Amino acid sequence: MSKQRVLTGITTTGTPHLGNYVGAIRPAIQASQSANVQSFYFLADFHALIKCQDPDLVHQSTREIAATWMALGLDTDNAIFYRQSDVPEIPELCWVLTCNAAKGLMNRAHAYKASVDANLEAGEDTDYGITMGLYSYPILMAADILMFNANKVPVGRDQIQHIEMARDIAARFNHHYGEHFVLPEAQVDDNVNAVLQGLDGRKMSKSYGNTIPLFLPEKQLKKSINKILTNLLEPGQAKDPDTSPVFQIWQAFATPEQTAQLRQQFAEGIAWGEAKRQLFELINGQLAEARDKYESLLANPVHIEEVLQKGAAKARAYSQPLLEKVREAVGIRKIK
Amino acid sequence: MSKQRVLTGITTTGTPHLGNYVGAIRPAIQASQSANVQSFYFLADFHALIKCQDPDLVHQSTREIAATWMALGLDTDNAIFYRQSDVPEIPELCWVLTCNAAKGLMNRAHAYKASVDANLEAGEDTDYGITMGLYSYPILMAADILMFNANKVPVGRDQIQHIEMARDIAARFNHHYGEHFVLPEAQVDDNVNAVLQGLDGRKMSKSYGNTIPLFLPEKQLKKSINKILTNLLEPGQAKDPDTSPVFQIWQAFATPEQTAQLRQQFAEGIAWGEAKRQLFELINGQLAEARDKYESLLANPVHIEEVLQKGAAKARAYSQPLLEKVREAVGIRKIK
Repeated sequence: MSKQRVLTGITTTGTPHLGNYVGAIRPAIQASQSANVQSFYFLADFHALIKCQDPDLVHQSTREIAATWMALGLDTDNAIFYRQSDVPEIPELCWVLTCNAAKGLMNRAHAYKASVDANLEAGEDTDYGITMGLYSYPILMAADILMFNANKVPVGRDQIQHIEMARDIAARFNHHYGEHFVLPEAQVDDNVNAVLQGLDGRKMSKSYGNTIPLFLPEKQLKKSINKILTNLLEPGQAKDPDTSPVFQIWQAFATPEQTAQLRQQFAEGIAWGEAKRQLFELINGQLAEARDKYESLLANPVHIEEVLQKGAAKARAYSQPLLEKVREAVGIRKIK
Repeated sequence: MSKQRVLTGITTTGTPHLGNYVGAIRPAIQASQSANVQSFYFLADFHALIKCQDPDLVHQSTREIAATWMALGLDTDNAIFYRQSDVPEIPELCWVLTCNAAKGLMNRAHAYKASVDANLEAGEDTDYGITMGLYSYPILMAADILMFNANKVPVGRDQIQHIEMARDIAARFNHHYGEHFVLPEAQVDDNVNAVLQGLDGRKMSKSYGNTIPLFLPEKQLKKSINKILTNLLEPGQAKDPDTSPVFQIWQAFATPEQTAQLRQQFAEGIAWGEAKRQLFELINGQLAEARDKYESLLANPVHIEEVLQKGAAKARAYSQPLLEKVREAVGIRKIK
């Protein structure tokens, strides 16, 4: 029996933070180590263009994200790790699928509908400020998935609809042109995209400006952790762990035993400074080695590029023959 | 001064007929012989997928159209003659432009609006039966044009809007990312897409089933011409040339002198059979040599493919460096 194929895309906007690590990166890297699975991980730079029109940021983010995943131990020999834009079959498949996607399907996409609602509320035209990129990216996402006939796509709940759309487009294609695509399944894991609280106790998110970047240098990591929201309770006063971002972040890194210990210390009135010191030690201990790797990867970016090129070659060993079949199916053929 | 670039796309659905020849092919081939112009002609097979879901028809049409243009004397050494799907930079540019095209722009496209109107009239949902291919093909068309920084695009009046959309998308891209694209101009020629009447006197069109295929074998061409609509006037009775499809088709092939002669003969009561015999002789005389070439090209399709591959190489000498610049501009860059 052939291995299950599991595909994960990482949009290359922004610098990875602890929330990304806990919610997406760490579980994905763990999953990639399963021998029963053929994992595909890709840097979704074509998707980045939808959200980010600053070329230097797109580029920087691509570099940082690639280095992050490699530093954290993604097994790039076992998993297939590539940059979307290194696989020219993807935008071509995207067009073929565009011809097989109902416009009505795109109208129902959550992200598009949310933008329309915001426009209507603001008294603007329905489609004010909406690009065709935002509107049609579910088709590009379908191409990302179908290009490799992925069986499973780990997603948060908010992304289930995209997988359903990919299934819909695949089924429509298969119906017209014969079976070419596996219908992918969403692998909903509520831990994936689990919400980590940020410095201010809200969800850790770039848009709130409350993130702790994953690979901050040690001193800055310490400073950043010291900024996490606390209250005015003094040392010796019992503190509620369940309303404390310090404790919540602790949980995401600690063993159950360590979590029970800190819960006890909260009850005993641990000082905030001490709790933060312990949190820093815990996180720093888990990240220090990877951070060193990260720094040395960024100091030798040519190696990152080599790894991505090798990954692209492995990815294209799948995408080229499949696209060849798709072309044959739709009538794009050599003349002979 | 560098040569003006003129770009013409030919959608690969259907078999070329006399109407296509008179309206589009003949003027385009004449134009390609100008030394002041660098002409690009391409077989638009990605566009064909929007309209035609029969793969054998797409393929057959691609073969027939390629053979037709070659047989009619397109100078494939001077002009750049290629198949759209042989230039992978085009679908990639299409995606980049998708991220730079306003959705509101697509809402205004005539073809889309006509489909919406037809749906509303039929009491259907607005977007019933409309694919994303139909909706977003102006972006693919923009990619076709901008990929080669074409200065001029010869079009019929119904296509002017598409060129305006390509300009709009190009300007938006240039504004964000710096000057990369020439703003193309529509070259409106009312002779291009001039309407030739079909067998029944309506516009010659595949959808009316009233066409005369361009390279019918001689006997069938004769038969077909004999089916052109006439009236019951007998030999010797004066006939009105200006309401006769026989005369209208004659005009499209004849010199002004020949046209004046036939007008005179109509006044003198030429028999319909005799008028059709003369029409057959005129058309057959002009097409016989090309028809022979066409037949021998189709008998040696490998040669057609070779010519298209050479064309693709010439086209990619333009598209690859331009896409490289576009990638750099938007932030899709090697890591180094």
